[in-house]
Formats: sequence, C-alpha cells, structure tokens
Amino acid sequence: MANLTQGYIRRGLYIGRFQPYHLGHQAVLRKISEEVAEIVIVIGSAQSSHTMENPFTAGERIAMIYEALSDLRNRCYVIPLEDVQRNAVWVSHLISMVPRFDTVYSNNLLVVQLFSEVGIVVRKPPMFRRDVYSGTAIRKLMLDGGNWRNLVPVPVASVIEEIDGVTRLANIFEEDSTQ
Amino acid sequence: MANLTQGYIRRGLYIGRFQPYHLGHQAVLRKISEEVAEIVIVIGSAQSSHTMENPFTAGERIAMIYEALSDLRNRCYVIPLEDVQRNAVWVSHLISMVPRFDTVYSNNLLVVQLFSEVGIVVRKPPMFRRDVYSGTAIRKLMLDGGNWRNLVPVPVASVIEEIDGVTRLANIFEEDSTQ
Amino acid sequence: MANLTQGYIRRGLYIGRFQPYHLGHQAVLRKISEEVAEIVIVIGSAQSSHTMENPFTAGERIAMIYEALSDLRNRCYVIPLEDVQRNAVWVSHLISMVPRFDTVYSNNLLVVQLFSEVGIVVRKPPMFRRDVYSGTAIRKLMLDGGNWRNLVPVPVASVIEEIDGVTRLANIFEEDSTQ
Amino acid sequence: MANLTQGYIRRGLYIGRFQPYHLGHQAVLRKISEEVAEIVIVIGSAQSSHTMENPFTAGERIAMIYEALSDLRNRCYVIPLEDVQRNAVWVSHLISMVPRFDTVYSNNLLVVQLFSEVGIVVRKPPMFRRDVYSGTAIRKLMLDGGNWRNLVPVPVASVIEEIDGVTRLANIFEEDSTQ
Amino acid sequence: MANLTQGYIRRGLYIGRFQPYHLGHQAVLRKISEEVAEIVIVIGSAQSSHTMENPFTAGERIAMIYEALSDLRNRCYVIPLEDVQRNAVWVSHLISMVPRFDTVYSNNLLVVQLFSEVGIVVRKPPMFRRDVYSGTAIRKLMLDGGNWRNLVPVPVASVIEEIDGVTRLANIFEEDSTQ
Amino acid sequence: MANLTQGYIRRGLYIGRFQPYHLGHQAVLRKISEEVAEIVIVIGSAQSSHTMENPFTAGERIAMIYEALSDLRNRCYVIPLEDVQRNAVWVSHLISMVPRFDTVYSNNLLVVQLFSEVGIVVRKPPMFRRDVYSGTAIRKLMLDGGNWRNLVPVPVASVIEEIDGVTRLANIFEEDSTQ
Repeated sequence: MANLTQGYIRRGLYIGRFQPYHLGHQAVLRKISEEVAEIVIVIGSAQSSHTMENPFTAGERIAMIYEALSDLRNRCYVIPLEDVQRNAVWVSHLISMVPRFDTVYSNNLLVVQLFSEVGIVVRKPPMFRRDVYSGTAIRKLMLDGGNWRNLVPVPVASVIEEIDGVTRLANIFEEDSTQ
Repeated sequence: MANLTQGYIRRGLYIGRFQPYHLGHQAVLRKISEEVAEIVIVIGSAQSSHTMENPFTAGERIAMIYEALSDLRNRCYVIPLEDVQRNAVWVSHLISMVPRFDTVYSNNLLVVQLFSEVGIVVRKPPMFRRDVYSGTAIRKLMLDGGNWRNLVPVPVASVIEEIDGVTRLANIFEEDSTQ
Repeated sequence: MANLTQGYIRRGLYIGRFQPYHLGHQAVLRKISEEVAEIVIVIGSAQSSHTMENPFTAGERIAMIYEALSDLRNRCYVIPLEDVQRNAVWVSHLISMVPRFDTVYSNNLLVVQLFSEVGIVVRKPPMFRRDVYSGTAIRKLMLDGGNWRNLVPVPVASVIEEIDGVTRLANIFEEDSTQ
Repeated sequence: MANLTQGYIRRGLYIGRFQPYHLGHQAVLRKISEEVAEIVIVIGSAQSSHTMENPFTAGERIAMIYEALSDLRNRCYVIPLEDVQRNAVWVSHLISMVPRFDTVYSNNLLVVQLFSEVGIVVRKPPMFRRDVYSGTAIRKLMLDGGNWRNLVPVPVASVIEEIDGVTRLANIFEEDSTQ
Repeated sequence: MANLTQGYIRRGLYIGRFQPYHLGHQAVLRKISEEVAEIVIVIGSAQSSHTMENPFTAGERIAMIYEALSDLRNRCYVIPLEDVQRNAVWVSHLISMVPRFDTVYSNNLLVVQLFSEVGIVVRKPPMFRRDVYSGTAIRKLMLDGGNWRNLVPVPVASVIEEIDGVTRLANIFEEDSTQ
Repeated sequence: MANLTQGYIRRGLYIGRFQPYHLGHQAVLRKISEEVAEIVIVIGSAQSSHTMENPFTAGERIAMIYEALSDLRNRCYVIPLEDVQRNAVWVSHLISMVPRFDTVYSNNLLVVQLFSEVGIVVRKPPMFRRDVYSGTAIRKLMLDGGNWRNLVPVPVASVIEEIDGVTRLANIFEEDSTQ
C-alpha cells in the first residue's frame, strides 16, 4: 500500500451510503472538488435496499449522484461497494474495487480507524449542518409528510418521485413497526 | 414475468415464517383454498432456527404444516425458502424456487412492495385476530408457561412436544437475556 | 442424531438433482414407495439453474416431480435444498430442512460416506438402466436433437416444453463452448 | 419490469469482464455510443482478480475503461458488478446496481437467455474480429511474450504496465500449472 | 457422532469469544486443565473485529490466549472459528474444525442446547465472579477510562496496549453512537 | 502493514493445505524452525473436506500436524484459515486470523504475488523432493493401493487410519468419476 502515497495522483476518495444523496453531501463534494483533480465517490452498503436504513438501491443512488453533480461528471467516479461482513478486510475490498487514490475524506471514525491501521491517513472534511442534512432526518421527514425536498438537490427529488420512493419507505416502515 | 399472469394457472402463493404454524395461518389458508385450485406455501427464513424469532427448523415447520393441513395435502406445495441478504433480488429468488403461480396473498407490506415493483399484484387475505394468533404472542406464552396449545392446531402441538420445543425456546431465551 | 433411529417413523429420504426428472427416478421412487409409508424427495443444488449441469430451476423441478408422481402426492414431500459449500456440514444442513426420516436411499457414494460418518446407514436402491436413464445423457439428447421425450414421464416433457427448455439449454451450451 | 420500456430513456447497457479492456470493446462501445444517449458499462465478475481468467481487479478495469473512453466520459457509467452464484437472480441483481436503462447489448447467449426470460430484449452488437480482439487471446500473448500492446488502447497498456500486470499474470500462471 | 464418546480421548473443549481474554477465562481454563489431558480452546465469531461486541481480531485473541496460558501451551489447541449464519449446522461446523474431543465445557445455554440435540453432553464449568470478569464489563471500563488492566492477565494488557486497543474501541464507540 | 516489519518479532509464517501433512512439510518446517523463534502454520482451504483435492477436515489436519511436530509444539501456532472467494482480500483475511509475524515462507507464486502487492516480502524455503513428497502424489497412492505410509510421519498415518481415510478417499473418487 506504500505505493498509494508515492507519486502525485491527486485523487480523493469519499464514502457514503447516500440514503438519499442530500445537500450536505453536495456541499462536501463541491468543497473536496476544489482540492483534488478527481473524486472517487463510493456508495457503501450497495447491496442493501428496501430497508428503513437503506431504502434506495445502489442503481437509484448512482442516478441521484450523477444527476446532482452533472457539472463535475468528468472528474468523478461513482462506484457501488457491497458490504463485506468483516471489518478487517474492508479496506482491501474497497481498494480492489476503485481506481488508485491518494487521499481519503471521511468523518466516520470507524473508517478512519480501519484506514489508519493499514497506514493510510484520512482527512476529515468540513460537515455542513449535520443535524439538518442527514439521511436519517430526511427519511424521517419523508415518513412524517415533512418538507424533505428542500434538503436534497432538485434532481434527487425527481429521482425519488419517479420511483415513488416515499410510498416505498412508508411500506417498509409499516411492516417494520408491526413486527 | 409477464408470463406469470397470462393463462389461467390458478395457483395461489402464501408466505410466512410459521414460528410456529398457528390457527391464524390455518384459517387464512383454508380461506385461500376456497379461491384457488392449488396453494404454494413458502416458509421464509428457512435457514434460521434456534433463535428467539425463529426457534424451529424449516424441517420442523414443514412437518407442522403437512400435519395440520393433511386434508389439503393434494393441493399444497410446502417449500422452504432461505433468506437472501438483499431485498432487491428476493422476488427472483422466490420465483426460481417455486412452481409457477398466478396470485400472491400477503399482508406483509414489504412483500407487497417488492412484488409490485416487478409488476405482480398482491392480494391481502383476511386476517384472523392477529393480536391473539401471532407467532410472537405464542412464543411469549411458551416462555411464560401460558396456554399456547389452544392457539395452534393439535398436530402442531404434538410436533412441538416431540422435539421438546418449549425447553429449546427457554434455553435460547436464557442465553439471549444474559448477554 | 441417535433419535433418528428410535421409534418407527417409516419415512424414506431420496436425494437427486433431477436435471431433469426422468423414468429412472420414477422407477426408483415407485420401488421405494412400496417399502416406506412416506418419501421425502430432496432436490439438490436447488440454487443452481441455467448451467450445463443444472439447466432447470428448483421450481421447475418441483413442478416436474409433482406432475409425474401425482398419484403418490399424499405420501411425498418434495423439498429444494441449496448447496452448502462444505461437505462436513451438509448432512446437518439437510436434516434441518426436512421432516424427520429413518432411512436414506442413495447410490451416491459421497452421500453414503457423509451419512455413515454421523452414524446414519444408507440403503442402495436398485438402479434402472443408468446408461440410458441419466440426466447427462438426456441433456445431451436435447442438445443433439435426439429423442429425449421417451426417457422422461409425459408431464415432465410438457413442463420442459412450456418453458422452452431445449432452447434454454442450447443457449447455455453455445455460450459455454465459445468461452 | 414493464416500466423499463415505457418512456424514452435512451440508455444502453453493455456488459463485459474486460480482462483486459481491448480494442474490440472500444469499437463496440463507440458504435453503441452513436445509437444511444448514455451507456451503462457493467464490469462483470468484479470480485475476481489474480486468477488466469480474471487477472485484474475491478478498480484496475475501471481505470482502463475511463482512460480509454475519456472523450465519452460524460455519457458513460462504469459499474463493477460482483457475481451472484445463481443465474436465476442475476438480472435482478444487475438491475438493482445500475441506473435505469432501456436496451441491453450483448453477444453472450446466456445473458440473452436470462434477460429474455424476464421479458427484456437484448440487441446483438457487431463484433470486431473476435478471434484477435479477445481477452483470452491477449492474456495468452502476455504470457508468451507476444505483442499484446497493439490490441489494447494506449492508456490501457499504461495501466497494465504501472501495476506490472504481465509479471502478475506470469506468477498466477506458474502457480496454476504446477498444481 | 457416536464415536466421539467411545474410547478415552480425554480432550476437553471450551468455547468463548474472548473480547478480551480475562481472568475469568483464565480461572476456568486452569480448573478444566486439572480434569483433562488437553484443552481445545475455540475462539467464536472469529471473523468479527472492530465492532462494539467484537473489537479484537481472531489473531489478536490468539496472541492473548497463548501469552496468558504459556505454561499450558503443550496441552492446548487454540482455534479460531468463523460464525455460520445458521445454528442448525453450527455443531457440525465446529466438529470439522477441531481435533476430536470427548467433553464440552460451556455455560452458554444455546451451546448446551445445540450439542444436546446431537447427543453430546455439555458440562457446566464453575464461573468466577461473572459480574466482574465479563467481556462486556471490561470493554465498558476501557471506554470509561476505568481500571480494566486488573481484570485481565498481564500479557493480555500488553497485547491490547501494543495495538492501541483502547483507542480503537473508542473510535468504534463514537461512530456507533452518532449513527 | 508497515508495522509488520518494525521491531523484531521473529515469527515466521508457513501456509499449506496439508492434504495430508507429509515428510516434505515436516522437513521444511524443521528447517524454518532453525531460523525463527516461532512458526505460525496456516491450514488453507480449512472449510473444504471430502473432496478429491481436500479429503481431510481442518480438524483432522490440525491433529496430524500437532502429532507430527509435538517436540516443536511450544513454538508453533496451527491455525485453520477458510478461503475467501476473492484473492484481493486474502492477505488481509489471513493477517486478521493470525498473531503478528515478520516473515512469510512460501513457494506458491500466487501467495508471493499477493503478499508482494501489499509490500510484504516472501522467502522461498527449500523444497524436499517435491515430485515424491506431494499431497497429490500421496492421494494417488492411497487410491492405487500404493505405499503412502512411507511418505508421511508415523503419527499422520495413524490419524488417517483412525478415521479410515483411505475408504473415504475411495468413495469420493468413485463418485467423482461416475459423474
């Protein structure tokens, strides 16, 4: 992995679940885009969908991101990453699925820990009002009939409406609560 | 999947975990049996056993159902279905494991959602006193020394006694609570 | 597993992949049906389909068997069994997925070995012209345009025709050979 | 899946393993790019690497494709897809991992078969000298010291040299043959 | 499995997750070592690490045990065991991964239940102040800055310090709580 | 992984499948034992058994090694390692399952390649008449009734006889050839 840092690759890596992609992600990625030549955007838990935590498929999340970041498309890689059920191999798994990168951006402390154990330093990007711009909060607004559209880029709202995402989430929620 | 609806197959599909099979299931299936020629009964989470939610093996649940529905045996298929850890392929997984069917019966809203996304309509069967006839309630009665036998068909009680199912559940529960 | 032999369960278990179900299977099962009260028919490699060795889904194979053995339906359990990628747990896996049985019938020496290592005796049923009545031979006839219909029960031929199984097999074969 | 065809999405999907990406792929994709607005390029067997059939990681293959198709980058999605060990759910798996598409391009007859069984038509794109432009042939040239560089886009040769891909393949081959 | 009891193997088997290995484990194993010739120590959930319940890798746990039990090393086997996601095959899985044994020691009632269902008797070893000597309690002390070192053998504290285990646990905890 | 080399751990790691453990392994390990303080012996493909390539379970192979190397037991760790179906994460998987080591010994070129890609150097130990001392050759002798006992340590022959390993192999072979 030593070769990850030698040379001057200038590719930053950013990881999220994007359930859904929101204006917080958008702000962070625009900020990172000023620092690096190219961004590798990794969609975590790619195999999950139709659950309370992960209502949208990886394909739907890919569509959201490309629509919202269309002006940066020439400098982005958007890559779905399935979970492996063991943290000790997760960094290797990720490295095998993405083009080479030289910086990781993450506020997730487990991600920070896992990368640091193999000698890769992680930068913490600024967060943009995490209380408001959070997937959990937005999914709650969707369930409660609140105004979630304000918190996501316009094209993301369209993707969600096309697939009738709010009804999907409501069905998942109903089932979950009656268990 | 279009071919699922063409023709007149008259096979209904019903899905449950049957932990254990109880009089609520029995009533629903007898009702469905009046509407369709044959019933495909799918036992979900077939790989699970010896847990609080799924104490009985698929084999034990198959025995319960055939014993309780022996008069309908000529018109039933009872099929264990292992979980796949991804909702987006679950309908395909199910379709590959059962004979062709033309109607799905389910009150599970996630099941309804998943089928509807591939264009298969789900009918909601009547439910029979779900507060009483529920697997969760029956397992609780088993743990509390309550009268669970009244809530299951007589041959199901025999299956559970043969395998000493109440002791099994008690052991699982004890372990679970001391963790 | 000691409890498998005590008592007098009178349930025989027969395992096959049934790709497709043919007159050899039919003859063996009719013979076994004279010796036992009930037969548990296990469909191995249930998760496999659309390959040269396993062209048909478990659901299609279930349909074949029930159609062909309709007169014995009241005494049969037909159960799909997914492979586990480790022979050492395969017997436990099988036991968990089927109702209790007291005799296994198999000519497969690996099956014989695995059961014998946990103390379960396997009986070898008579085989009926294995050179002719073999899944491999029948699949070859399907590819070569030969007369495979003679080697399977009439309702099995119907199932295969309904799903256009010969075209499926031809497509799999073409792809396989050009690799 | 009926909704895949309604509307006018104009997104074509192309599937390959790209071991490595070569001028045959390049020619097909340039041809398809004239017919569709956007192309979804799916990298199959994404989890495989360091084998004779799949020497390169998904990340390396992603790099190859983006480098070689940089002028089309605004109109492409390059998506790694892990295998599922069951053909019957593969189409669902793929659909869940990619943005919506309305045409599949493939010469792989198993792919054609699997899509056609769920009612999705597959177009066969022209092939460009498959005898020469084939992953198998190129990997053989790499092992034999032949001129493989001529058969891949220039940036792909650079990716392979950066990771010392020929030595990797030689090591895999040596191990494989002495087994 | 009948052959597990015949003969006089004199090998005891003890199962734990050892997160971390503590003085309670040490006391039980020293006690068992007086009763049996050799001890097979099975490390459960071997694939898990970097979680609140399982912070340490199997390799780290192996190191802890060998360091702490160095005087018994000639009579011990320390074997990591990955989970299987199905309780019904767990005993077979375990048996396939360890040398033959004739007694199981466990206070875990699920373990007792699973072994008893295949006819293997489990002995309950004495427990040593389970309120104090418990993995859960020790991990809590680590997070709270309490005195956990007193509760583990000295060489275990060294292993944990070498890998900076307390920081790891803190990072996992932080991430877990902000979810 | 940089931290694998710092300090002076003096632990060598040796990997094999040991089907069965033979005098070639024995000679290599005795040689390595002169160079290092402790040896970590990793049993690959631990989940495999009852196949032509891997007839013996991991537990049986552990017994073989400990019996044959009893005089080195104080300096050995014998650890079963299940396969992961992806070479790119295999080194991480291994590292997570074993105590820290500072040198790898292997003649397997794929192993050499995988370690070298993460910056870990592998030493090639001398091989002892690989034509004779090879698992493949020994398994063939077992099937042909040849003299395999001469090629394994005496206690290994005893382990194989206790489990009637030659009959097991013969049954696997018969089944394999009639497929």
